[in-house]
Amino acid sequence: MKREIAVLTVGDELLNGERADTNTAAIARRLAPHGLRLRESLTVADVESEIEEALLELAGRRDVVIVTGGLGATVDDLTARVAARAFKRHLVLSDEALRLIREHFRRTGREMHPRNEKQALLPQKAILIPNPVGSAPGFILPQGEKELYFLPGVPAEMLAMLEATVLPRLRVGGEGAVARERIFKILGLSEPAIEEMVAGAGLPVGVTVAFGVDFPLVHLKLRCSRADADSLLDRSDLIVRRLFGENLVAMGDETLAGNVARMLVGMGLTLALAESCTGGLIAAELTELPGASAFLERGAVTYADSAKIAWLKVPASLIAKEGAVSEACARAMARGVRRSAGSDFGLAVTGIAGPDGGSPLKPVGTVFLAVAGESGETVLPCHFGGDRGEIRRQSVCLALDLLRRALIGRIAGGA
Amino acid sequence: MKREIAVLTVGDELLNGERADTNTAAIARRLAPHGLRLRESLTVADVESEIEEALLELAGRRDVVIVTGGLGATVDDLTARVAARAFKRHLVLSDEALRLIREHFRRTGREMHPRNEKQALLPQKAILIPNPVGSAPGFILPQGEKELYFLPGVPAEMLAMLEATVLPRLRVGGEGAVARERIFKILGLSEPAIEEMVAGAGLPVGVTVAFGVDFPLVHLKLRCSRADADSLLDRSDLIVRRLFGENLVAMGDETLAGNVARMLVGMGLTLALAESCTGGLIAAELTELPGASAFLERGAVTYADSAKIAWLKVPASLIAKEGAVSEACARAMARGVRRSAGSDFGLAVTGIAGPDGGSPLKPVGTVFLAVAGESGETVLPCHFGGDRGEIRRQSVCLALDLLRRALIGRIAGGA
Repeated sequence: MKREIAVLTVGDELLNGERADTNTAAIARRLAPHGLRLRESLTVADVESEIEEALLELAGRRDVVIVTGGLGATVDDLTARVAARAFKRHLVLSDEALRLIREHFRRTGREMHPRNEKQALLPQKAILIPNPVGSAPGFILPQGEKELYFLPGVPAEMLAMLEATVLPRLRVGGEGAVARERIFKILGLSEPAIEEMVAGAGLPVGVTVAFGVDFPLVHLKLRCSRADADSLLDRSDLIVRRLFGENLVAMGDETLAGNVARMLVGMGLTLALAESCTGGLIAAELTELPGASAFLERGAVTYADSAKIAWLKVPASLIAKEGAVSEACARAMARGVRRSAGSDFGLAVTGIAGPDGGSPLKPVGTVFLAVAGESGETVLPCHFGGDRGEIRRQSVCLALDLLRRALIGRIAGGA
Repeated sequence: MKREIAVLTVGDELLNGERADTNTAAIARRLAPHGLRLRESLTVADVESEIEEALLELAGRRDVVIVTGGLGATVDDLTARVAARAFKRHLVLSDEALRLIREHFRRTGREMHPRNEKQALLPQKAILIPNPVGSAPGFILPQGEKELYFLPGVPAEMLAMLEATVLPRLRVGGEGAVARERIFKILGLSEPAIEEMVAGAGLPVGVTVAFGVDFPLVHLKLRCSRADADSLLDRSDLIVRRLFGENLVAMGDETLAGNVARMLVGMGLTLALAESCTGGLIAAELTELPGASAFLERGAVTYADSAKIAWLKVPASLIAKEGAVSEACARAMARGVRRSAGSDFGLAVTGIAGPDGGSPLKPVGTVFLAVAGESGETVLPCHFGGDRGEIRRQSVCLALDLLRRALIGRIAGGA
């Protein structure tokens, strides 16, 4: 039996613009490898009547409801109380929950606040879900064939409890045919262009196509739920790789930055960065994953000309003549940071992210990317549209892609 | 009349973990200043029956429904067709929509794909919403007293159309009493501790309290919907400021990084950064807002010891003796980057974000923060819990806060 799963997230902050809900996507990501899919996700405010109505509706039309948020120690944390009322149970103090809360504070060496005792009040006959990270215990409410899981809203706590308790229980339920999916991340082609290319490529029958956008990347998703899904998707994989060639910049869960990092580590090569308008974003992305110290020697965020001159040895005369946003400066930055770090590659970005600083000759969105290696430098002049954030995003992706192409060239060249 | 507003986001990618929904929060943020609040937000997959059911349900129980996603040119973009079916209208080719789509491609100098013509198919009697950014037009479906707004899922396009067309229409509807809110962002105190402090502080009657978490910050939200809300919240503001003092690190929409940037610009001071385990995150946050070049002279991401030695002039002997993760190294990094940049302040981070690299003496989570100014350096040794991402987040916030306190000290000291 394929169970239908819904997520309910609770919190004013998710509806007043203060915070975007990341729990739904995080839950979906953990469910997917087990062939479990969300059917819907609902968000309501910290209002008793709204939470109650949402619980009853979702429990009515789905088999499993995962609720996050509202289990904290403060007055606007209402979920346990409302759940008890919705399903006509008493709210009782759970000794086991209280013990776990006390244990949490002892373990973390922090003082327990009397208000934290409130977190041990659970609906009668609820099954406790221990919280390995924080103080709020979660709980399961079985309703006939259905199950409601209540987890805290704090992402790290929610995920730890999902992994430790919820996922194992959901898997035991046993799912039927698993829908497989492969994701191809493509840079430099539009969604309709990609769709037309795929439509004419002769993908095997049974493989369906969907799209997503992670600006400026387009995600092409191939899905198959047949018994021979793996072999059909393997065949599709070959077709898609041939079709998109160098425009295919990452696959599956991997990001473009993750792919570049993996290539560098695998090839035993080192990198140094010189960033102007991207302001450290490339460094931040490359160091998000563990192990970045294996390849990243150093990075410079050179906003001021003096920094470009001192650290990157860009000649002052070059900046005076060509400007800091120029092909020559990008080239000198990449070469300079590579030389100062003694790294295999240098990657540089200089440009105008706006909204100010543009001129008729070099309008906002003018960005120069450069990669330096042992055989010299390659510069890519770009003219990006969009706002400051979008110009920075495109600069990050195209710079990483420029390096990726240089690394592929090294393989192709037999180096 | 206070109209109830719901958001419906459509897309497989929002339910399979590939992408988190940011549109709901972005819409809520744009509505809030006009006293308009979301009552709920629902997400469904690219499945006709699910979209249809969601449209009918939300249109049944709310006055305004804002739908995003599924207006693209590809086969999995179903929203317009389903909306037509749900509300029993024909799907017709809109000449005006087609003209706008053609105009978009002409303006951006890109070739229009025949598939983009599909985007001109709208439910009969729909009111067109022009898209100033992309190719997909949106539309309004009036249903008696109610209105459904259909916008593309691409955030930049959705927001441009929300601002230009949806918001003006919603405001014309006229709202009654406006719920005002003030947000206080607090670092270094737990949610229950903050709640207890606030409970005993004597806030005016009519002001209610709610909480949110933006790890490691806690957001304290004071709300009031009385006619004299502004003066009640002004009084509360004074109380809260006195109560939390230096733990209050930002207010309202401003981030901690934004607050620090504004202080630096206002005081005419400059900054240089030296980041190890935060890998450029502090630089990336400080440069997210326009105008960062006014205060950020440069930043170094010094993963390798050689970079700390060459760029920051940290003595090799110091690293050999104390280690790169040490109080002495943090101090030398802050002093060194300040001196090399000739800036008023130097801010440095060195630590072990994990998961590897820890030792019994310096376990994962050991981080040293240092700020250097004209009167010397201050070092803050930290031991953070959590995973790599959480250790990096805490390091960023506490480093920015260390600088913020140094800036306050300058004001207090009369410098």
